[in-house]
Amino acid sequence: MHASILARQIPRASVVAVADAFEDTAASVAAELQVAAMSVDELLASPQIDAIAICTPSPTHVELIIRAAEVGKAVFCEKPLSTDIGEVDRALAAVERSGTPFMVGFNRRFDPGHRSVQRAVQSGAVGDVQLARITSRDPALPPPGYVEGSGGIFVDMTIHDFDMARFVVGSPVVAVFATGAVLIDPAIGAAGDIDTAVVVLTHANGAITTIDNSRQAVYGYDQRVEVMGSKGMATSDNVAKDNGRLFTADGARGANLQHFFLERYRESFVNEWEAFIDYVADGGPSPVPGSAGRAPVVIGQAAWQSVREGRTITVEQG
Amino acid sequence: MHASILARQIPRASVVAVADAFEDTAASVAAELQVAAMSVDELLASPQIDAIAICTPSPTHVELIIRAAEVGKAVFCEKPLSTDIGEVDRALAAVERSGTPFMVGFNRRFDPGHRSVQRAVQSGAVGDVQLARITSRDPALPPPGYVEGSGGIFVDMTIHDFDMARFVVGSPVVAVFATGAVLIDPAIGAAGDIDTAVVVLTHANGAITTIDNSRQAVYGYDQRVEVMGSKGMATSDNVAKDNGRLFTADGARGANLQHFFLERYRESFVNEWEAFIDYVADGGPSPVPGSAGRAPVVIGQAAWQSVREGRTITVEQG
Amino acid sequence: MHASILARQIPRASVVAVADAFEDTAASVAAELQVAAMSVDELLASPQIDAIAICTPSPTHVELIIRAAEVGKAVFCEKPLSTDIGEVDRALAAVERSGTPFMVGFNRRFDPGHRSVQRAVQSGAVGDVQLARITSRDPALPPPGYVEGSGGIFVDMTIHDFDMARFVVGSPVVAVFATGAVLIDPAIGAAGDIDTAVVVLTHANGAITTIDNSRQAVYGYDQRVEVMGSKGMATSDNVAKDNGRLFTADGARGANLQHFFLERYRESFVNEWEAFIDYVADGGPSPVPGSAGRAPVVIGQAAWQSVREGRTITVEQG
Amino acid sequence: MHASILARQIPRASVVAVADAFEDTAASVAAELQVAAMSVDELLASPQIDAIAICTPSPTHVELIIRAAEVGKAVFCEKPLSTDIGEVDRALAAVERSGTPFMVGFNRRFDPGHRSVQRAVQSGAVGDVQLARITSRDPALPPPGYVEGSGGIFVDMTIHDFDMARFVVGSPVVAVFATGAVLIDPAIGAAGDIDTAVVVLTHANGAITTIDNSRQAVYGYDQRVEVMGSKGMATSDNVAKDNGRLFTADGARGANLQHFFLERYRESFVNEWEAFIDYVADGGPSPVPGSAGRAPVVIGQAAWQSVREGRTITVEQG
Repeated sequence: MHASILARQIPRASVVAVADAFEDTAASVAAELQVAAMSVDELLASPQIDAIAICTPSPTHVELIIRAAEVGKAVFCEKPLSTDIGEVDRALAAVERSGTPFMVGFNRRFDPGHRSVQRAVQSGAVGDVQLARITSRDPALPPPGYVEGSGGIFVDMTIHDFDMARFVVGSPVVAVFATGAVLIDPAIGAAGDIDTAVVVLTHANGAITTIDNSRQAVYGYDQRVEVMGSKGMATSDNVAKDNGRLFTADGARGANLQHFFLERYRESFVNEWEAFIDYVADGGPSPVPGSAGRAPVVIGQAAWQSVREGRTITVEQG
Repeated sequence: MHASILARQIPRASVVAVADAFEDTAASVAAELQVAAMSVDELLASPQIDAIAICTPSPTHVELIIRAAEVGKAVFCEKPLSTDIGEVDRALAAVERSGTPFMVGFNRRFDPGHRSVQRAVQSGAVGDVQLARITSRDPALPPPGYVEGSGGIFVDMTIHDFDMARFVVGSPVVAVFATGAVLIDPAIGAAGDIDTAVVVLTHANGAITTIDNSRQAVYGYDQRVEVMGSKGMATSDNVAKDNGRLFTADGARGANLQHFFLERYRESFVNEWEAFIDYVADGGPSPVPGSAGRAPVVIGQAAWQSVREGRTITVEQG
Repeated sequence: MHASILARQIPRASVVAVADAFEDTAASVAAELQVAAMSVDELLASPQIDAIAICTPSPTHVELIIRAAEVGKAVFCEKPLSTDIGEVDRALAAVERSGTPFMVGFNRRFDPGHRSVQRAVQSGAVGDVQLARITSRDPALPPPGYVEGSGGIFVDMTIHDFDMARFVVGSPVVAVFATGAVLIDPAIGAAGDIDTAVVVLTHANGAITTIDNSRQAVYGYDQRVEVMGSKGMATSDNVAKDNGRLFTADGARGANLQHFFLERYRESFVNEWEAFIDYVADGGPSPVPGSAGRAPVVIGQAAWQSVREGRTITVEQG
Repeated sequence: MHASILARQIPRASVVAVADAFEDTAASVAAELQVAAMSVDELLASPQIDAIAICTPSPTHVELIIRAAEVGKAVFCEKPLSTDIGEVDRALAAVERSGTPFMVGFNRRFDPGHRSVQRAVQSGAVGDVQLARITSRDPALPPPGYVEGSGGIFVDMTIHDFDMARFVVGSPVVAVFATGAVLIDPAIGAAGDIDTAVVVLTHANGAITTIDNSRQAVYGYDQRVEVMGSKGMATSDNVAKDNGRLFTADGARGANLQHFFLERYRESFVNEWEAFIDYVADGGPSPVPGSAGRAPVVIGQAAWQSVREGRTITVEQG
């Protein structure tokens, strides 16, 4: 999907080559997009290539970031950079040494609705932020075996919401309380994870954010963001599949929520890649800098500690 | 209902007495509100009484208006003043001779949603008006025998919408096209009336209003108003019984529309009586003057003619 | 207000007399409603009176409940019964000894939107409850000096939400985490209270409820309830002042939220009194029994302890 | 756009070649999609090509349809087939003679919201249809000179709504009333056209449809469809750019409507091409047959006659 958006919908980008651990996948995408299939070594060595987009499984991120940074390629990397803070720091240090452009793939920042919330805060329309709420519930369980390697819900799923909280409130996190339960799928519990979670974040500016997560909202992909302050409240509501409704003597009926992240966040991906390409081409501050990739991992680890200890955990650089 | 609102919710009003052709009804309302029950003659003769509210059946309106005007009482009269233009003119002439305060009971002008549309137009926020739409559908058929004495749908039911069109567009009507059918209740057809109607009005300022009516919308009391102009569109949407919703894998469900006019237009009645009492007490222009009671009758008669002749009918003072 | 609803809108109720510590207030209400003004002693001694509605300041509740129960009057009492659990228990013991009908005044249970959420849960449409969210934010600060005698936000304001959580989730509370801050009015902080709060409740059935409160939401009275479960999500959304909207090249604008609790919860009060009168007249279980008045006080005290200690507090009978 | 959707988003379609009167345009699209650029003669002669999509200016449609039908290619043709009924009939006769698959490009039938209205009617959920309403207003004026060759608003713009009325009501049109004015752009009036129009259609089943059109709705692309019947009402509402909102003491603000037809009807185009390709590949009845391309032209001509004569015009096969 990412390669296709870059090739077809981002006029300033030109896809040179794709690489994949599965050669067949790489070959098939390359054929469809009429570009080359390369190995990672070839990609990194190619003088034609200015920027690398790392959309591989998380455990491979750090090494690829470091290698790309060392050869001076601009880097886009999907979240999480790593579930291990030490590893995150190793990658960010390499980026800093090389001075290469670097952006973390928190696509939800580029969703038009969520972004309108952040802009309302930034413009002052919301006033001093007091309360924020993020609801983030997946429409369906991940495939069996997925959670084992995921780092757990707070690093795998809530990490988006930790980033969103920092983004829309505009202030770092200083304290974390989390709780949760296995209410949906015992297999998730057997893997040491939880499927239902609530997190309360305290920000440096005093604002309090509440996050709730579920691995399975049968009514659709529930993605809402809200910030309330001294002057008002900005909200980003769910998106229905269509705007048809039926009114009868039994009440009103409407369509389901959009169900799939590619549908719900379609625009955010296009906007995200546009932001990356503009950043690589024109310079300026990173749209989502390395520090924004680090903080949610810190918060996620604190959330796990809070669940274990039943108390609020203080964090630095969250 | 009207007596109760006046007695209990309009602080500046004091209900002195009630009259009703059915003495038992008058006595029971009088007892409940702790006021006197009088005959019409007594009411008109009472020096204690400053204003008369005429909420009787339409055929009695003109005579009561004339009598009340002659003794100098302020008059509130429900719509329609009469279904006969000559009679309307006779009543309005008596009002003019006496110089007494006079207001027509078009309560929907005082509905907060509809009023917001009119204010948006009046303030200039909508710009030059180009198109208006009024949907006005009753939730249930009137009782058997009702339509016979009603003057037909255009004078009985659409009259509210003719007034609303003039009110929100802010310009008189110069041409009328109407069509309709019997699609719900053959008994209405047998009585020479129609139960489903569409009217297209052309206003003096060039704007075109479309009205649609139904005697039976099984999903509730459908009351919507919309005006579009060179700068924007103002709308007044339906009101649901409550704001509860249920989201499942089958979609979203919400409550019915409010079903009954006393529920849907509760606030409008209070606002209407407040406007009348303020007008009687403080003077100034009538909130809904006699001319506003006359024009919809002119338009209604033109609508019937249009249905018969299948063409647009030009009107004066509509 | 309560006396007026009972006198005018509840056909089965007959208001006999009113009492007030301020005799002038009692006299004026009595005159308006055409009933007697009595002292509390007279009320309790009157053989004409079947039921007493206690709508006095909280510190007087317990004594009045006990006295009314001892003379066998049915009792309606506003929340909180007391901010002290020992006192609550003393009142409930008197009620139990006398066997008199008793109902606690949690009016929000009778709001049509919130009630639709509870019914969706009770009917099974939501499935097994997993997450609930209650947003409860006042439109304006209480008058100066109010918070001092209020017992603090959790007992004065959140108590409604604790009851709502128990009501809509349908399961008692077993653990409480709370946090909060003074972000609006330093005077509230000076009084030892907070003006912004978040509470996380764990229910016996495993569900987790999140509550957020603010003493001042400048955009209106924000009252939302939501329950999500294995089969769907039921929500009760805010109510706007009207359904008018204006669409221009700058976007869409709509009305404010209803601002005042008498406006927002008008229907709930009527429904509540109807439920009380039906209960007194017809018997059956109390619509809101004494235990429902006790649990939120337990939870409120645990919330204060949680704020002080920064950890989750386990409760019994919450 | 059409070529790109067919090439990239319709897996069963394979774009072989593109043709354009402007060779540079053809060459550039061909290069982007990696397909051949051909002349019309070459296209029609190519044995590789099964189906032709005619998306050229209207005056060229009939000749291209006839030529494609004669060589047995399946044909997709944009609306209107022609503004002249005789020409339409000549094209449809050629299609019938050849027996080739033929589909008219009324994309709005494939919009998820509008389609949900049609399905609600077809499923019986709406009951017997009584009233329909279609609002169709462009966000901005067409370029200067455009209306001259357009056949006028009823054939150029309302033609979509005539098709929609037939589609959602499920019954042909038997009578047409139309009125309109020049309220936006005097240049449109100078060209003999109108920019604001209202049409009332009577269907064979008795239902009445109201259409209103504007060439310039400054608040966005206003596209609504609604059908009311004996059992309920189905509606398809406008689509906002995003679901963000801002609540302040001044009320609630939301985003603009989607402004551009490619944005608003994006999904409809993909669905439309999918339907065409499935039809060509699998056979069965045409998703939008030739008769559906003819009727709106009949209705459009009757609308012009109605405006000139100020009366209802009876139509056959409308």
